[in-house]
Amino acid sequence: MSQSILPDLSPYREDLDAIESIIKSKFSSDASRLTEISNYLLELGGKRIRPILTLMTNRFCGGTYQAEQLFEIAAGIELIHMATLLHDDIIDKSSVRRHKVSPFTKFGMQDTLLAGDFLLTRAFRLCARLDPFVIDQTERACIELTEGEILEVPLYSTDHCLDSSLTIARKKTASLFRLSSVCGAFMANSEPSTIEQLGVFGESIGIAFQILDDILDVTSDEATLGKPIGIDILERKPSVVNIIWLESGSKLAKGLLAPPGEDQCESDFCKEAIEEIKSLEVIPRAKELALDYAMRSKAALDSSSKSITNCDLNELKSLQQLIEFTIHRLG
Amino acid sequence: MSQSILPDLSPYREDLDAIESIIKSKFSSDASRLTEISNYLLELGGKRIRPILTLMTNRFCGGTYQAEQLFEIAAGIELIHMATLLHDDIIDKSSVRRHKVSPFTKFGMQDTLLAGDFLLTRAFRLCARLDPFVIDQTERACIELTEGEILEVPLYSTDHCLDSSLTIARKKTASLFRLSSVCGAFMANSEPSTIEQLGVFGESIGIAFQILDDILDVTSDEATLGKPIGIDILERKPSVVNIIWLESGSKLAKGLLAPPGEDQCESDFCKEAIEEIKSLEVIPRAKELALDYAMRSKAALDSSSKSITNCDLNELKSLQQLIEFTIHRLG
Repeated sequence: MSQSILPDLSPYREDLDAIESIIKSKFSSDASRLTEISNYLLELGGKRIRPILTLMTNRFCGGTYQAEQLFEIAAGIELIHMATLLHDDIIDKSSVRRHKVSPFTKFGMQDTLLAGDFLLTRAFRLCARLDPFVIDQTERACIELTEGEILEVPLYSTDHCLDSSLTIARKKTASLFRLSSVCGAFMANSEPSTIEQLGVFGESIGIAFQILDDILDVTSDEATLGKPIGIDILERKPSVVNIIWLESGSKLAKGLLAPPGEDQCESDFCKEAIEEIKSLEVIPRAKELALDYAMRSKAALDSSSKSITNCDLNELKSLQQLIEFTIHRLG
Repeated sequence: MSQSILPDLSPYREDLDAIESIIKSKFSSDASRLTEISNYLLELGGKRIRPILTLMTNRFCGGTYQAEQLFEIAAGIELIHMATLLHDDIIDKSSVRRHKVSPFTKFGMQDTLLAGDFLLTRAFRLCARLDPFVIDQTERACIELTEGEILEVPLYSTDHCLDSSLTIARKKTASLFRLSSVCGAFMANSEPSTIEQLGVFGESIGIAFQILDDILDVTSDEATLGKPIGIDILERKPSVVNIIWLESGSKLAKGLLAPPGEDQCESDFCKEAIEEIKSLEVIPRAKELALDYAMRSKAALDSSSKSITNCDLNELKSLQQLIEFTIHRLG
């Protein structure tokens, strides 16, 4: 099935390498510990989906110039993403990231927190000297990131519903996907309406990605995921899956409305929860929702392609493949 | 003694109020918790020494225009300071700030961390749309802040000396004093050499302030300080006072080279330490050092006054009083 593969990234390899070089150059510091933590995190790898989005949307809109500034924005956005990973691990007390010891566990809370601030500063500096539009959009995304995280309080401490869960997904995850796409389009001198449409494209694919994450927390396994499964259940997160499970009326799901108990008891609850979620119509409903956002993303992309005079059809195909890839991962 | 009083701030009241309004306007968020934490911290009060420095240096250099941009920079710097207070409390696990429950204890680690990121984002946005010079200087200061904090590892985990202690003071405290002064001068269209001299002025008074802080940790009392005394001792910090005490050859001071023990034992050690430090020549030596930096600050100020054609003598007096005030607090 051709839809299953990530778009061919070889045409972007050189640009991605240039972005990676900018990122690395920003790790330099009088305090070697900051460099060490930053390098460790970078070397854990990742799909680099945000820089890819920036490059693809830029070329799609006919952008062929200002490569340096474009790479700086892409590097800045990835640095913001890295900073949030460091701070998220502290917030979630995560000990594992990408099959390895998390920076939080390896370097301790204090130093990981400071390394996050360090990367955030480096990121802002990269975006700050660009157009006011980029600055405004970067601020918006970073504010939304913190809002999404702080709104993500456990299910037992406030009322959540599907709407609030999707707001959190939009803010904590989709905001940087949106920023990446919007900046790519802006740097190609696109019309405001095209930039806006590509913003919707990025935001929608970002929400689909987050719902996919919520689903994988239940349906995947530790070896594939690179971290334990069931974390959203254990931490009573207002994930889309948890909300749908709770709204199904399941008695067991009500366990999400109380703080975690003892370890043994929790591990039993988590196992039972995963089994029940899999047996009910929870995952199919979550998939349907993710698919809906993938379709919105597709529609926004198609609509933007009509408004771009020198639209690159190869790039359109790559962006469509990115959506197809997400859909395929939904299984 | 006229030197003992803070300079008369009434000529700056209106401007300080305008800056405070900008700061408050940046607290707005879809997540009310972020607004709540920011307001709580702001209402704990503070000397607002950084905005005062920006206003004073600006007027001193003959700045009379671009008030809005000047206020935005000053607000941005104070917001950076606020963000670091939130993150510092997490790092130091401080439960008290300014006689009140610290934001960290009141709102919890997670939300306090995110509120710090939120304020940092707001701050950057304020500085980002200004001159590249301001952006570069802001990045420099913020990077130094994180470097200063991460270099401040306990005395038992690495070798420290007076030099490294002063580097930490310069980076973690004096960097924002420097930034405030440099931006004030820059916004008055000053010559590069004048900006540089006022940078030395700000940095030197910042280091003097930090040494004063280190001294007060031993010589003050909880009621005056607004938080417990002896924290630098308990946490084995490479403060100037601790380094001088350690270099005195005291047997007791060697206790700083081992991690804290049990609570009771620690409380005894802290009491004995404070008594011994007071009985030795530690505080006078630290005062001498602070005085030396205050003098450097004064010299840089005097020298800059000669290079400014339309230098405001009233403002020169106010800035001198700020130095005198620091010296007087040394006792």
